[in-house]
Amino acid sequence: MTKISGKSLIGFREGAGTAAGFHGVNPATGQKLEPPFVSATSEEVELAARLAGEAFPVFSRLAGREKAKFLRTIAAKIEAIAEPLIERAEQETALPKARLQGETARTCGQLRLFAQLVEEGSWVNARIDTADPERKPLPKPDVRSLLRPLGPVVVFGASNFPLAFSVAGGDTASAFAAGSPVIVKAHHSHPGTSELVGRAVQESVRECGLPEGVFSMLFGSGTQVGVALVKHPVVKAVGFTGSRTGGKALMAVAAARPEPIPVYAEMSSTNPVFILPGALRERGEQIATGLHGSFTLGAGQFCTKPGMVFFAQGGEAEAFKSKLRQAVSQPQSFTLLNSGITSAYRESLGKRKQNASSKLTVEAPPKEGLAVGAALFETDAEAFLKEPELAEEIFGPSTILVEHSQRAQVLEIARGLEGHLTATVHGTEQDLRDFADLIAILETKVGRIVFNAFPTGVEVCHAMVHGGPFPSTSDGRSTSVGTQAIFRFVRPVCFQGFPTSALPAELQDGNPLGIWRLVNGELGKK
Amino acid sequence: MTKISGKSLIGFREGAGTAAGFHGVNPATGQKLEPPFVSATSEEVELAARLAGEAFPVFSRLAGREKAKFLRTIAAKIEAIAEPLIERAEQETALPKARLQGETARTCGQLRLFAQLVEEGSWVNARIDTADPERKPLPKPDVRSLLRPLGPVVVFGASNFPLAFSVAGGDTASAFAAGSPVIVKAHHSHPGTSELVGRAVQESVRECGLPEGVFSMLFGSGTQVGVALVKHPVVKAVGFTGSRTGGKALMAVAAARPEPIPVYAEMSSTNPVFILPGALRERGEQIATGLHGSFTLGAGQFCTKPGMVFFAQGGEAEAFKSKLRQAVSQPQSFTLLNSGITSAYRESLGKRKQNASSKLTVEAPPKEGLAVGAALFETDAEAFLKEPELAEEIFGPSTILVEHSQRAQVLEIARGLEGHLTATVHGTEQDLRDFADLIAILETKVGRIVFNAFPTGVEVCHAMVHGGPFPSTSDGRSTSVGTQAIFRFVRPVCFQGFPTSALPAELQDGNPLGIWRLVNGELGKK
Repeated sequence: MTKISGKSLIGFREGAGTAAGFHGVNPATGQKLEPPFVSATSEEVELAARLAGEAFPVFSRLAGREKAKFLRTIAAKIEAIAEPLIERAEQETALPKARLQGETARTCGQLRLFAQLVEEGSWVNARIDTADPERKPLPKPDVRSLLRPLGPVVVFGASNFPLAFSVAGGDTASAFAAGSPVIVKAHHSHPGTSELVGRAVQESVRECGLPEGVFSMLFGSGTQVGVALVKHPVVKAVGFTGSRTGGKALMAVAAARPEPIPVYAEMSSTNPVFILPGALRERGEQIATGLHGSFTLGAGQFCTKPGMVFFAQGGEAEAFKSKLRQAVSQPQSFTLLNSGITSAYRESLGKRKQNASSKLTVEAPPKEGLAVGAALFETDAEAFLKEPELAEEIFGPSTILVEHSQRAQVLEIARGLEGHLTATVHGTEQDLRDFADLIAILETKVGRIVFNAFPTGVEVCHAMVHGGPFPSTSDGRSTSVGTQAIFRFVRPVCFQGFPTSALPAELQDGNPLGIWRLVNGELGKK
Repeated sequence: MTKISGKSLIGFREGAGTAAGFHGVNPATGQKLEPPFVSATSEEVELAARLAGEAFPVFSRLAGREKAKFLRTIAAKIEAIAEPLIERAEQETALPKARLQGETARTCGQLRLFAQLVEEGSWVNARIDTADPERKPLPKPDVRSLLRPLGPVVVFGASNFPLAFSVAGGDTASAFAAGSPVIVKAHHSHPGTSELVGRAVQESVRECGLPEGVFSMLFGSGTQVGVALVKHPVVKAVGFTGSRTGGKALMAVAAARPEPIPVYAEMSSTNPVFILPGALRERGEQIATGLHGSFTLGAGQFCTKPGMVFFAQGGEAEAFKSKLRQAVSQPQSFTLLNSGITSAYRESLGKRKQNASSKLTVEAPPKEGLAVGAALFETDAEAFLKEPELAEEIFGPSTILVEHSQRAQVLEIARGLEGHLTATVHGTEQDLRDFADLIAILETKVGRIVFNAFPTGVEVCHAMVHGGPFPSTSDGRSTSVGTQAIFRFVRPVCFQGFPTSALPAELQDGNPLGIWRLVNGELGKK
């Protein structure tokens, strides 16, 4: 199961492909990795879509415990190949082994969390309003509803999470949990890793006796395969993590379809950090150390990387700044995920260096040829407010400090923010009271507000919201991390006047599945 | 409070307007109704938006019981003017008094249902995952989330529901319940009715001591005011009920904004009816009577009007058809909502009459000059499958019967359906078992499946789904009727590591509001 063929996986079949192959590349050495990978043809896209469409009626009706078994089988199969998988991922991404071990655990944990969710079953939001034939002026009908999957989902692998947001990552796990077949467009930056996980999923489909179309994984070096998938009439939703350009392009393709479909694109986020006066006074240096760790974690390639930091100028800021500058100036090797990201990082730094609105105060020398250095920019609120470029995301180990002279500027900056995944606030309880207006603004700008911690490291749990207003995501009403991610791929369906035997088990009289239901407005297990 | 001025209501102010006025028209007589109404200027649009933006921070934080009081105040004020309101609505819409009385009751019932929902408070989907500082390899943070309103909402009044889906209808009630200020674009077809209700809402805002921007209502005879509202950066969501052309235009405007926003447009639906063999045999004539009542109810101007009916040809179909033809042939006056709808109905009938794929079997003569007659078309499955026009909605008292000779044709027809709000199935329990495959297909095509009843008459309750896949609505993941309609105007917001005193009450330790919460994955009132 750990052989890599370079072929797309289309149901239980292997893609042939005819286009020129592409290779995985070791970003630390620049060396091509064997074997070559072959992009899927348009016939193969069509076949994957057709199989997904055929699988949907069966897979969408699978009992929760059957879906749970499938999800747990995938987790076990990934764990069984963890060693070669992590080895290949290390070669393809230059991410450190410990990080990839953690990411493998997270991926499997995610699959098992969704298994638990669908096995328990209450997530379907079963609602029952019972009939009242005597009601005047009109009898009241029996009305029942629950959440059902939208249909086949296309998932785009993310370059920065080769496991947890790729082939069997959060999007795939939540779509499977919802009852949707998944077609993955593998990220060309870690194709071998993708294939290994893809084969684990393919094997799980077979072992659980599910229709082959429940899962396909297609390779493609350009945008053709992805666009063809999003356009396909069988596809009913899209999960994507990547650039703003890529996300917006997919949104446009999906909106222009004869039947528009939802695109859940996680795009770009600069994740503002606000250090309030009390916190700056009490623990400025400690915050500097934590901030450095957070913005350089994973070489600054997390979507929650804190990319702009706001605080009041003055004496108390000095210790913070000096500690941070010192940390950034340490030579440290940051190898980015691929050569495209490396050039983009260098270009963005170059552009910002030339921007008179900010000053590069520290740029650490990289230790090795292909690696990059961390960079710290500094500016003040006045310049920041005038220069929108300073609020743009730079993907990589860089951040910008923004000092203000008046409290009003912080509020003005907050009001002017685009949507972000997170905002972080460092403060004392007194600060929180003094800046309640700031928190109120941030609530309208981000999906998650972090207090006295750092935004990197997204907990996979029930309450997590990893999503935020546009342009951080295409749909701020959703989260891509945590159990609520399942709600992206479903819609409510209502049955009126049906005999109980013809209803889905979740809605039958007597509650055979023992789930939580809203019966005549009362929540209970009746 | 029952004087009609013809002016837009902008917060607590009255619009001036400079454009030429327009009039309400009595569709039964063709006579203009006084006074003239003045379209809002672009400055007035701007003012309404600015006031809504200013009101949002206050209104969005209002406690559930305060929002409930506001919603109940509106209901009481509408009831207090019910008599002149219904009188004016009768003049502007030609809908019968009894229907308008029922609609008034429904409108007020809806407002009170949402009051109850937000007063109880559990709708916010509060989720808490508590911290575990000892967890390895990383400590687990405290993560809490709840639903918060998106921001100001624009609601377009619907021509066919002058009360229940207009100024204080389902869209407005659910947006207010969510905590969103509302700007209504009043429908030009019942402007006086709109103003009367608008003044009741305006008075309620004042009486409850809320910021004036919580509600505005603008007049406009064309599309200008509506488009300007949807484009305005302060606006974060749109509720619309109307034509497919109108809905799609608003979707395009919203998607082209620098920050795209969700549009909940209910557009068009033909609401297929399937009469299965057992039902046709057992009670064909009874179904014919019910069907006639349903497709002519409200002069066939309900979005759930059954507009195409499928059943097997043969002896048992004859009694059904003959009973239906007889019912349709009775002379009956149907006055449509306005002259635009009347001409559109006549044009659609004309077009279908010329279509060789179907046959007009009955057209009842209208009793009066401006009224229209009911029309019954008939065809067979073969022709229907070849001619997509036959599946299009005709707004007004008309339907088409489609007979098939083979069971496979029914499934082919079902598979080929566009998205609809409802599908109706008449059958015995044996029929349901025999046609389980049909039901499975319909589940993917509609929001609500009605068994042995008719789709008109949408119950306002917790389980209702009045929504369906595109093009019946712009977003098949939503409902515009019932308590779940509130979820259209909210998004989840997450707080990590906050001290309990700085959290919204819904998320505080000790559950001060006593609502249902998901704590570490367990639902309860802890």
